[in-house]
Amino acid sequence: MAVTLGHNQYGKAETRVVRIYRDADPHELVDYNVSVALSGDFAAIHLDGDNSNCLTTDATKNTVNAYAKEHGDAARQPESFGLALARHFVDDVEPVARSRVKVEMYPWRRLDSGGSPHPHAFARDGGFVRTATVTYQDGRAWVTSGVKDLVLLKTTDSEFHGFLSDRYTTLAPTTDRVMATSVTGQWWHTDPDVDWAKSFDVALATMSEVFAGHHSLGLQQTMYAMGAAMIANQPQLGEVRFSLPNKHHFVIDLSPFGLDNPNEVFHADDRPYGYIEGTIHRDGAPDPELAFDPGQGW
Amino acid sequence: MAVTLGHNQYGKAETRVVRIYRDADPHELVDYNVSVALSGDFAAIHLDGDNSNCLTTDATKNTVNAYAKEHGDAARQPESFGLALARHFVDDVEPVARSRVKVEMYPWRRLDSGGSPHPHAFARDGGFVRTATVTYQDGRAWVTSGVKDLVLLKTTDSEFHGFLSDRYTTLAPTTDRVMATSVTGQWWHTDPDVDWAKSFDVALATMSEVFAGHHSLGLQQTMYAMGAAMIANQPQLGEVRFSLPNKHHFVIDLSPFGLDNPNEVFHADDRPYGYIEGTIHRDGAPDPELAFDPGQGW
Amino acid sequence: MAVTLGHNQYGKAETRVVRIYRDADPHELVDYNVSVALSGDFAAIHLDGDNSNCLTTDATKNTVNAYAKEHGDAARQPESFGLALARHFVDDVEPVARSRVKVEMYPWRRLDSGGSPHPHAFARDGGFVRTATVTYQDGRAWVTSGVKDLVLLKTTDSEFHGFLSDRYTTLAPTTDRVMATSVTGQWWHTDPDVDWAKSFDVALATMSEVFAGHHSLGLQQTMYAMGAAMIANQPQLGEVRFSLPNKHHFVIDLSPFGLDNPNEVFHADDRPYGYIEGTIHRDGAPDPELAFDPGQGW
Amino acid sequence: MAVTLGHNQYGKAETRVVRIYRDADPHELVDYNVSVALSGDFAAIHLDGDNSNCLTTDATKNTVNAYAKEHGDAARQPESFGLALARHFVDDVEPVARSRVKVEMYPWRRLDSGGSPHPHAFARDGGFVRTATVTYQDGRAWVTSGVKDLVLLKTTDSEFHGFLSDRYTTLAPTTDRVMATSVTGQWWHTDPDVDWAKSFDVALATMSEVFAGHHSLGLQQTMYAMGAAMIANQPQLGEVRFSLPNKHHFVIDLSPFGLDNPNEVFHADDRPYGYIEGTIHRDGAPDPELAFDPGQGW
Repeated sequence: MAVTLGHNQYGKAETRVVRIYRDADPHELVDYNVSVALSGDFAAIHLDGDNSNCLTTDATKNTVNAYAKEHGDAARQPESFGLALARHFVDDVEPVARSRVKVEMYPWRRLDSGGSPHPHAFARDGGFVRTATVTYQDGRAWVTSGVKDLVLLKTTDSEFHGFLSDRYTTLAPTTDRVMATSVTGQWWHTDPDVDWAKSFDVALATMSEVFAGHHSLGLQQTMYAMGAAMIANQPQLGEVRFSLPNKHHFVIDLSPFGLDNPNEVFHADDRPYGYIEGTIHRDGAPDPELAFDPGQGW
Repeated sequence: MAVTLGHNQYGKAETRVVRIYRDADPHELVDYNVSVALSGDFAAIHLDGDNSNCLTTDATKNTVNAYAKEHGDAARQPESFGLALARHFVDDVEPVARSRVKVEMYPWRRLDSGGSPHPHAFARDGGFVRTATVTYQDGRAWVTSGVKDLVLLKTTDSEFHGFLSDRYTTLAPTTDRVMATSVTGQWWHTDPDVDWAKSFDVALATMSEVFAGHHSLGLQQTMYAMGAAMIANQPQLGEVRFSLPNKHHFVIDLSPFGLDNPNEVFHADDRPYGYIEGTIHRDGAPDPELAFDPGQGW
Repeated sequence: MAVTLGHNQYGKAETRVVRIYRDADPHELVDYNVSVALSGDFAAIHLDGDNSNCLTTDATKNTVNAYAKEHGDAARQPESFGLALARHFVDDVEPVARSRVKVEMYPWRRLDSGGSPHPHAFARDGGFVRTATVTYQDGRAWVTSGVKDLVLLKTTDSEFHGFLSDRYTTLAPTTDRVMATSVTGQWWHTDPDVDWAKSFDVALATMSEVFAGHHSLGLQQTMYAMGAAMIANQPQLGEVRFSLPNKHHFVIDLSPFGLDNPNEVFHADDRPYGYIEGTIHRDGAPDPELAFDPGQGW
Repeated sequence: MAVTLGHNQYGKAETRVVRIYRDADPHELVDYNVSVALSGDFAAIHLDGDNSNCLTTDATKNTVNAYAKEHGDAARQPESFGLALARHFVDDVEPVARSRVKVEMYPWRRLDSGGSPHPHAFARDGGFVRTATVTYQDGRAWVTSGVKDLVLLKTTDSEFHGFLSDRYTTLAPTTDRVMATSVTGQWWHTDPDVDWAKSFDVALATMSEVFAGHHSLGLQQTMYAMGAAMIANQPQLGEVRFSLPNKHHFVIDLSPFGLDNPNEVFHADDRPYGYIEGTIHRDGAPDPELAFDPGQGW
């Protein structure tokens, strides 16, 4: 019996670094959760316990923290912060052949004080988490931007009917339902020469506006429309991917209590939930290759 | 050996009801998580399995859902929804002597569409959860409003020094640190004749503004200032209580990498955390009695 | 307008300390999450930012860690560890009048190796968390032991019928249902001269055995029987308190698919859930006073 | 601008079904969380809102529940349950070309009663979650078994030194440290003719025993040894994959308190954590193709 080491990667996950820009007036801050995964010439680490090629995960953490100072301008946006880090690990650390840097960014909004913006006080804006993932190998970088935990809901303009019926189908068709989801999405930039802050804002506004305005015949159709509009609005987007839980809102039967319920009172259920995932690709854009590849995914 | 049944309470917890107001143009919605606890003449249920005095928890759930329709106006605010429910269980269900209704309200913000507010599409505003707790007994109601998961941070204007030093004290004093917390607070209305929406907005704005503007010598001092200002701003507030985790942001030592770090790069730590709790009472206001009593608390 | 500071407490929460006993063969370990809350002469901290009476939360953390070494024997059980810490803060730190030390203990089981117990390798036993809370004031200590996250289920021997029926009652009575709960319980020792490890084992075995063997007419009745038996089995127990979610398992209607379902296939629902809380007190035992008082509870 | 629909999949996630075998004496139960993802001829659903090829996610949920009754023998093990379901969706529902069924299984242990096993009462065994994933396409099935949330710790026999040192490396080498991890692992069966219960037990015992007995020079080396032994012990295993967080236990410096700390008192840290992922492949085994492919992974 003999075995071979296959794909492997390692690094420090979830380094929680906050960078404050104090020379600005007012103060600004960015709040990150950074996870690093490195692949390369690591076979001897696994087979022999020979760690001479092993950059410690502690050092990857230190690097993230130090780069928040050394590369303070890059650190203002998750994509550019990820790019600086991803390039460093491959270009500067001999055994590393591929790096993947995932950044979660927690948005903050400035508090008011006496009617005007406060110079150094903030509240966490929990409406979503902004994300960026940079993969770097052979001198090439793949950058995706993304969002998660963006919860959207529309109270009407959503139908679901005409579906396939098999032996286990009992769902009633409907021409008016509540549609809600918690958006996880990522979009790949074919060209990394981007104003990251502006691009994210446009992407977020586009998907929200399409969700709001689209007359939906199903969550899949709405998802596709969201992705298509995002690609139409930004020329450097090559592909958009979504994972959309269908957060079911069930109309509650109030007739036992002598009450009608014309789509007014709903049970917001936890589990199970429909789970809709899809990919929208710009015609003519290249294959995204490593852009969406988690290396090891479950 | 003989034992006696002491305090007991039961009910359905975490009924997730969403109420949509569709006759309005634009649509409006409220999103609640409602937990009911009832006390009363329930000894035989425990001692003999005699359930003749037992309102089923299923019925308390049904009541919450039905009231979202039957008492639609009350349901627009968590305090008035809680009041309607709390009164019902005691006044209409013979064995129930005390009711406690806890409401979590998840805020939503209206999406934009082409520059104007959309009539029926929303995004969850994750910046905080609004809460209300109503306790009702002997014809009297105690109403508290509250907030949780409101994360506040200031990048300066926070000192901590001059503290007691014992054998186990190693902390260095500081005249400039990041201060951050996740606010859990509740405030008791001595008079329930309140515009609940407006009162909540004033309370939230007051605590946020004090947090921002207060030159802090410690989280306890800031907490006290927040509560005092809330009571000053609203004549019907009798008492305010807070639980404030001190979400530590530690300055990272970058000197091993040849870098200085003048309060710019921080590690946002998870655990352990300081935990500051306190009560601010209006002079002359009555004792809050049942207002903050969880019945069974851990 | 004037306000007064009411009850307040503070300390470091969730210090995650692991103590390994290496002089033993085999090695032993205890794994704790310790939260400290101190009350006392702290008004000036809140009112004036005068921290001269403020033991830093950092020092309470240091104390927890140091005591795991200095008082290694006490640290072997959560109750004796809590007692040592609670006494210290009041007896040795001048401004502290009351301390409350909550300990969560995560059990580990020893791994096997070649058929015999391994001397230094373990797996976390996730079946429950053991807890202890010690409150100390005026030279007196109140000690409770407890458990949480103990999930119990019985597939039969559980009925629920004969309940009160109001306008909102639709539940069907049943003579055979699945009963499941996640036990949170605490029990107060009137006499702290206890073999803590043995006492916990007896309490856990008693509640589990009663849950298994009791023919239940309702979760309240089973809860009461569990507490009564615990008090009967251990003379130093003065009071037991439970919070028991009724983890509903709903029989799924399979008739649309031509299948019967005689209590075989269930939906394990998340929310809402019945929530049953109660107190069982030994006749003649004193009032538990501070034993179960969280100070500030929500 | 034109876009194309790429990979997509959908289904009902997290159907929480419990199956009780009541004709057995004693009763037995299985407790599952089942997630289904289907791919196939679904373009019109996305592009045109034409749902005629859309099996509703509600029907996939119904199917899971019905199969727990109809295919009760298969439902006794997560792998055979997943196989039955995965085959059905492709073989019986015309537009479905590929199915992926993920099953989480929550283990229960039988309670004691009077010294002997109780016939119908159980406690949840929270030591780990057993998993199985079945992918089915073109008449072929890929079956993986797995585990998650298995927390292992060894108090010694773990070294880490000799590692690469770059500008950001500050970690001190050590010849004796605590090593702890929470195992997520999956292993692919090249031949699905397996006694699933026995195979899982052997896999779990093998990885635990190797973890315990291995003198570790790094978590990567231990991971590789675990996978190699699993493949050696079971001839039908073709590949094993792990994701192992390095749950850091940091030795606490007690010297400020005049105490030494010879690897006795540790801080169990939450974040950041090292994250070690790897693949161990049996020489000569075929490529796992779809076995580990999540379809859409983040």
